[in-house]
Amino acid sequence: MTAVSPLMPKNFPVLPSLAGVRMATAGAGIKYADRADLLFLVFDKVVDAAGVFTRSRCPSAPVDHCRSVLAHGKARGVVVNSGNANAFTGRKGQAAAGLVAEAAARALGCRENEIYLASTGVIGEPLDAAGFVDLLAPLAVKAKEDNWLEAARAIMTTDTFPKVATRQIHLDGHNVTINGIAKGAGMIAPDMATMLSFVVTDASVDPGLLQEILQEGTDASFNSITVDSDTSTSDTLLLFATGSTREKGVRHIGMRTDSGYKVFADAVKNLLLDLALQVVRDGEGARKLIEVYVTGAVSDPSARKIAMSIANSPLVKTAVAGQDANWGRVVMAVGKAGEEADRDRLAIWFGPHRFAVDGERDPDYSEQAALHYMKNDEICIHVDIGLGTGKAKLWTCDFTQEYVAINGDYRS
Amino acid sequence: MTAVSPLMPKNFPVLPSLAGVRMATAGAGIKYADRADLLFLVFDKVVDAAGVFTRSRCPSAPVDHCRSVLAHGKARGVVVNSGNANAFTGRKGQAAAGLVAEAAARALGCRENEIYLASTGVIGEPLDAAGFVDLLAPLAVKAKEDNWLEAARAIMTTDTFPKVATRQIHLDGHNVTINGIAKGAGMIAPDMATMLSFVVTDASVDPGLLQEILQEGTDASFNSITVDSDTSTSDTLLLFATGSTREKGVRHIGMRTDSGYKVFADAVKNLLLDLALQVVRDGEGARKLIEVYVTGAVSDPSARKIAMSIANSPLVKTAVAGQDANWGRVVMAVGKAGEEADRDRLAIWFGPHRFAVDGERDPDYSEQAALHYMKNDEICIHVDIGLGTGKAKLWTCDFTQEYVAINGDYRS
Repeated sequence: MTAVSPLMPKNFPVLPSLAGVRMATAGAGIKYADRADLLFLVFDKVVDAAGVFTRSRCPSAPVDHCRSVLAHGKARGVVVNSGNANAFTGRKGQAAAGLVAEAAARALGCRENEIYLASTGVIGEPLDAAGFVDLLAPLAVKAKEDNWLEAARAIMTTDTFPKVATRQIHLDGHNVTINGIAKGAGMIAPDMATMLSFVVTDASVDPGLLQEILQEGTDASFNSITVDSDTSTSDTLLLFATGSTREKGVRHIGMRTDSGYKVFADAVKNLLLDLALQVVRDGEGARKLIEVYVTGAVSDPSARKIAMSIANSPLVKTAVAGQDANWGRVVMAVGKAGEEADRDRLAIWFGPHRFAVDGERDPDYSEQAALHYMKNDEICIHVDIGLGTGKAKLWTCDFTQEYVAINGDYRS
Repeated sequence: MTAVSPLMPKNFPVLPSLAGVRMATAGAGIKYADRADLLFLVFDKVVDAAGVFTRSRCPSAPVDHCRSVLAHGKARGVVVNSGNANAFTGRKGQAAAGLVAEAAARALGCRENEIYLASTGVIGEPLDAAGFVDLLAPLAVKAKEDNWLEAARAIMTTDTFPKVATRQIHLDGHNVTINGIAKGAGMIAPDMATMLSFVVTDASVDPGLLQEILQEGTDASFNSITVDSDTSTSDTLLLFATGSTREKGVRHIGMRTDSGYKVFADAVKNLLLDLALQVVRDGEGARKLIEVYVTGAVSDPSARKIAMSIANSPLVKTAVAGQDANWGRVVMAVGKAGEEADRDRLAIWFGPHRFAVDGERDPDYSEQAALHYMKNDEICIHVDIGLGTGKAKLWTCDFTQEYVAINGDYRS
């Protein structure tokens, strides 16, 4: 159970420092022993904030807090703990979140509505905030700029590797950087399939535009992955812009027509997809990354619904785990989606191999080619519905006995 | 893998004979060796038929056939094979179904639209009907009335035990009998979660009313169970009424206001629920039967959607497999259903124990009571939403490593 996922990226990028963005971690003993479980991310000056959150009707207390302070749109710090989600903890949970925000604001000399919170771990256990809030003031002092990997480690729960990504673009003769970290391995489904992710850029961007870029990027990344169809109570994705590059003379990005907008937005979206795919690669028990690509549906939303039906099907996912190119189960999943489909127009590819066409097995189907292809770490399932031009792409992982072992034994 | 489910009923009822209802089985070698995989159910006279089928947009060729002949509403025979679903087999599949219907009609000297078909097993493999249709004529001859258990065995695929049920009611001084068989273990989800079930009664019932009784009974039984959220391409539930008791002087049931209607309809519904629960008890890899009961939702459909979200949650089901009363995951599943819910009004019971109330852990929560209760074979999860009077009850099973083992290795 402690081994890393076989799908872990071969290399971790080194994240460059961002001026005025510092972080420190501590072992607060919330649940885990012998590891950091508390992260304090500090901005030396007030920065702009954007955020998207779980659509669960039963969100955690920290999600409630973030939603409320995001109305203000400014940030000085983020406190994240792992080991306890502070979810379904009633008024006690609200009080615990308030205690953390208050202590963090005091440590930074700022207002409580400039503090963002996130908690991840067990649901329903009261969070003993009093047990760790005294750590925040010393953490604020010792926080340092080149600490991204340690930050990513501190927010892990059942993750087997820390998730980090960075992008740089060149504007007005300078580098503009975007750094991000994420955690998530189970209870991963739209909307939104991240659990937690924090992204910071030194670009100067209009706050409304920042929020739009984040939302669009989320739809194509964290909202397009699923590990187990279970949606977390705690999903939180925050994007902060310090604007520090403006002091060097780099332009401000105020609207979509500004030059620089597209290259910046694309870099953010690309980074979000990188982080989201890392989450899938660390899906609990995952041995294979699966890309589900649906084309030819009557519309994009229809394609997305069909793709989601395939990506969440236990029978499709166990077949991939068993290295079985069981396209019959893909047909089943198309059929159950409830979207327009004509059985006798379907075509299905696994990687480069077309296994089914016109409603039956491809005449050129080769069991040997299927067996060979299914040994890959990354499996692409492409279904053409044959009715229109709607398309969608999603990512998931296979469903292994390890998933059941991890989740049958998580709390105890 | 070959052991029977630990949730198998302790006793199988002996199904009484029904006059003029005969059945025979044969080992046709369609996929399995050394076992019967072909069933021919024969009615000596024309009987009335009712049926409900999968809502999959990609149904099997036999489902297409049954839907078409049901318009006529009369039956003389049913041919069922296991080992191959004849689904997604294109024009070849249609031809195979036609060949079987033709041979069965010839064997019985009836019309093809009096023959019903069902196939269950692997999807996407052409069904070699020519290889077994010659068996139908001799089967029609040797078919006998007291052969229900053998019939139930012949239609099994990954089932570990045959599913049979019987009910008798007393009308006008005589017994009226309802016998049923079913198969299904995986790819089980509404609508409708049966794969295959065949029910026969000697009552005399108006065909339109028979169809209504079947549909209502299905909603509360086969449409209220889920093993893995995957909907089969082949689900077929047929109800036949021979009317033979009328010859003894038992009344005809023509409409809902007729005396005898309610007792008969209730018996049919009760039998359908019995069969449906047997399917859940044989859910692939199942070790525990789970009843999910939702009350206090804003409406019955809302309650049903929440209950389905809980019953299909891999995280809830793996927790039960791990004997963990993880009510936090139940909250998660309520939250992701997207239905009206107020986190701070939820209450959750596992069996008699209330573990959560008013949005947080019950002050009287006892870990010991939880551990003790979760050792049971049958687990009841009751969630009160606290908003209205809507309610729903569903059944599912736990999610074990065995499920993954079975389905990662089914085709090979």
